Amino acid sequence: MKKVKIALLGLGNVGRGVWKILNSNRDEIMKRSGYEVEVSKILVRNKNKERGFEIDKDLLTIDFNEILEDSSIKIVIEVMGGIDPAKEYLVKCIERKKHIVTANKMLIATQGDELFKKADEMGTMFQYEASVAGGIPIIQGINESLTANKVEEMYGIINGTTNYILTKMELEGLDFDDALKEAQEMGYAEVDPTSDIEGYDAQYKLSILSSLAFGTKIDIENVYREGITNIKSIDMKYARAFGMVIKLLAIVKDKNGKLEMRVHPTMIPKKHPLANVYDSFNAVLIKGNAVGDLMFYGRGAGDLPTGSAVVSDMITILKNNIDLDNINPVVKNNLWDKKFRDMRGVESKYYIRIRVYDEPGVLGRITTLFGESGVSLRSVIQRGQEKDGVVTLVLITHYTKECQIIEAIDEIYELISVKKIDNIIRIEDFK
Amino acid sequence: MKKVKIALLGLGNVGRGVWKILNSNRDEIMKRSGYEVEVSKILVRNKNKERGFEIDKDLLTIDFNEILEDSSIKIVIEVMGGIDPAKEYLVKCIERKKHIVTANKMLIATQGDELFKKADEMGTMFQYEASVAGGIPIIQGINESLTANKVEEMYGIINGTTNYILTKMELEGLDFDDALKEAQEMGYAEVDPTSDIEGYDAQYKLSILSSLAFGTKIDIENVYREGITNIKSIDMKYARAFGMVIKLLAIVKDKNGKLEMRVHPTMIPKKHPLANVYDSFNAVLIKGNAVGDLMFYGRGAGDLPTGSAVVSDMITILKNNIDLDNINPVVKNNLWDKKFRDMRGVESKYYIRIRVYDEPGVLGRITTLFGESGVSLRSVIQRGQEKDGVVTLVLITHYTKECQIIEAIDEIYELISVKKIDNIIRIEDFK
Repeated sequence: MKKVKIALLGLGNVGRGVWKILNSNRDEIMKRSGYEVEVSKILVRNKNKERGFEIDKDLLTIDFNEILEDSSIKIVIEVMGGIDPAKEYLVKCIERKKHIVTANKMLIATQGDELFKKADEMGTMFQYEASVAGGIPIIQGINESLTANKVEEMYGIINGTTNYILTKMELEGLDFDDALKEAQEMGYAEVDPTSDIEGYDAQYKLSILSSLAFGTKIDIENVYREGITNIKSIDMKYARAFGMVIKLLAIVKDKNGKLEMRVHPTMIPKKHPLANVYDSFNAVLIKGNAVGDLMFYGRGAGDLPTGSAVVSDMITILKNNIDLDNINPVVKNNLWDKKFRDMRGVESKYYIRIRVYDEPGVLGRITTLFGESGVSLRSVIQRGQEKDGVVTLVLITHYTKECQIIEAIDEIYELISVKKIDNIIRIEDFK
Repeated sequence: MKKVKIALLGLGNVGRGVWKILNSNRDEIMKRSGYEVEVSKILVRNKNKERGFEIDKDLLTIDFNEILEDSSIKIVIEVMGGIDPAKEYLVKCIERKKHIVTANKMLIATQGDELFKKADEMGTMFQYEASVAGGIPIIQGINESLTANKVEEMYGIINGTTNYILTKMELEGLDFDDALKEAQEMGYAEVDPTSDIEGYDAQYKLSILSSLAFGTKIDIENVYREGITNIKSIDMKYARAFGMVIKLLAIVKDKNGKLEMRVHPTMIPKKHPLANVYDSFNAVLIKGNAVGDLMFYGRGAGDLPTGSAVVSDMITILKNNIDLDNINPVVKNNLWDKKFRDMRGVESKYYIRIRVYDEPGVLGRITTLFGESGVSLRSVIQRGQEKDGVVTLVLITHYTKECQIIEAIDEIYELISVKKIDNIIRIEDFK
């Protein structure tokens, strides 16, 4: 049996998963890869930290150079996260012709292009399946299995924390705050949950998936982002009344060569496969012009699922015969030039919840203003009075451009009879 | 741009899909593979057949040797189906160092081992993603993305015809015969539907998936098979009453190194992701010891979805630099020796529907016989009398061994009060 030495940068949650899998599935990995894998070094910040699992302390080092300078280490697995110093470390490793596996979404989303080029120049492999949707092989799916297709659209539930919160709100009627608290207690949400609940995490991941699916360089600023903090229980109830549920969707569509990319709460029909993705599960639905609808569903986070993607990436490198010079080229990222569509040009149906003072003619004035902006309404629900003579209006529009909605809402907001525009949620019916 | 010549064996449904994709997605294929692909020859039985799409008749040939002897043809795509002469043709092509893509499930399930060995000897690539579940990249998923895992269980809806029929029965209340007729009219079922509705098609596919997931050689006889022809509307109604639906599931479980493989109608909880796979869609759920639950969902048949898998396989070969000698090795099939568990040793819950003459003590005698065989009952429903004093009993068991059910049923069948054992359906709760 051939032997290979590898190193880990980082031993947090994902690092622990990788370590566990390398040990528990040793036989599988040997037979599948043809190599006996030895972890020679693991870079950590503190060698004496209590880690809650067995590990030989001699493997740990706080000195990156011990890994860099050891030419017997052929593969470096980066699971430390963040950009600094991860990027610098990986560039240096690539320059020493070490092959790379990383689980770092922020790094790939913002610096991927430069790293891919560097790896291509040096003829090393660079794998990053774990950077999006944990254990789900979505990157391999796009890079290897859908290559015969023009991807037309992609819809993802790619943040487990927000999906867990929305599930609790939908199925158990919790408020956002209570659901968030429960997610934090369960370890699904961080103490500072901003990156998840405001959609930043999904924005990074959508940027990576879009750049692969459309073979183009994506700047994170081109991805519209809106979090779930404004979703109320009442919106969940209205959604149910309309036969829909609310999910934080990451959406990319190719509209005649113009990409629109957006992360926002979305109402989708209850019968759609994505509507039945619950708890912290992730799923990505791709529409290809040959394959049609294709969905991947699984665990988007966690030490073992993410570790599964990392170790599989390592095996892919080993199966490509790391000793050879002729390795698979890194997938090129800049195959096409795409333009981007501004959010104002996006077309959607909309759910709009407004509170108004119950005065004669107020509904008429509002619907007139929608009409003047070219927004056609599909249904209007007026609920009985709350205190102080306030009533809730819920409106569903037909397909309309976002700029028309903005125009109408600006006008409606000026009406004296309008107390508050409570929420605007885009509706996706996948047609 | 580099150029490569390929040939097709067959131009039926899948062949047409491949042809269409090669033409409509020419730019994508060039950029993704790095090659301009030219179809030099297509083997057909009749050059003058009306095909309903545009194709240069000079490309067509009825002589396989024109393809075999042309050393400029580097990749052969087999979409003719069947074993004879497909196997002979592929062996000859491999011997001439041509790389192979095939969509032929029967060939892979029964002759795969020999073909893989031959390709390995000759150093050619052999791709067969399209042989199972059409456009769904399940083979790549197992061979490349789940390599870090011990696969523990796998559950598939891998026959679109039967899923279409069961969908019609479940959602529209059709009888089996009417649903089958509709499937035939829609082109989802063959004039002779035996292979689909009796589960042979799913049996082949499960055999392929199991051999890959467990790295072992599978004989088709080790896969238990039961079709859907005995499913009645009344079973659908009872399933619904229990919060379940009926699907034709292909199941493989590794029970301490013993594989149990079976294709049969199965009641599953309505809330499970597989229960919501409707119409002719396919889905495969894999449980890996690292990745947890992972599901792939998509179109399991059709010219373009299956063509998508074929063309992606071709691109995989091109990306591996077909000119090099050092190609990726063919995935080895015989990594482990596994034993197989006989169907009698399988453990499951069971739904049993019996018609009995409404006589005093009959229910007592039946439940006693179950008890004596060690079968514990979870619930019993007795429906009001039909004509001739006959009543229907529906029983749900706790987990029990199949041999105990068989023993009990044999005894119960002998009772004079029992008119007919109408149906026995296994229940899977994925626990």
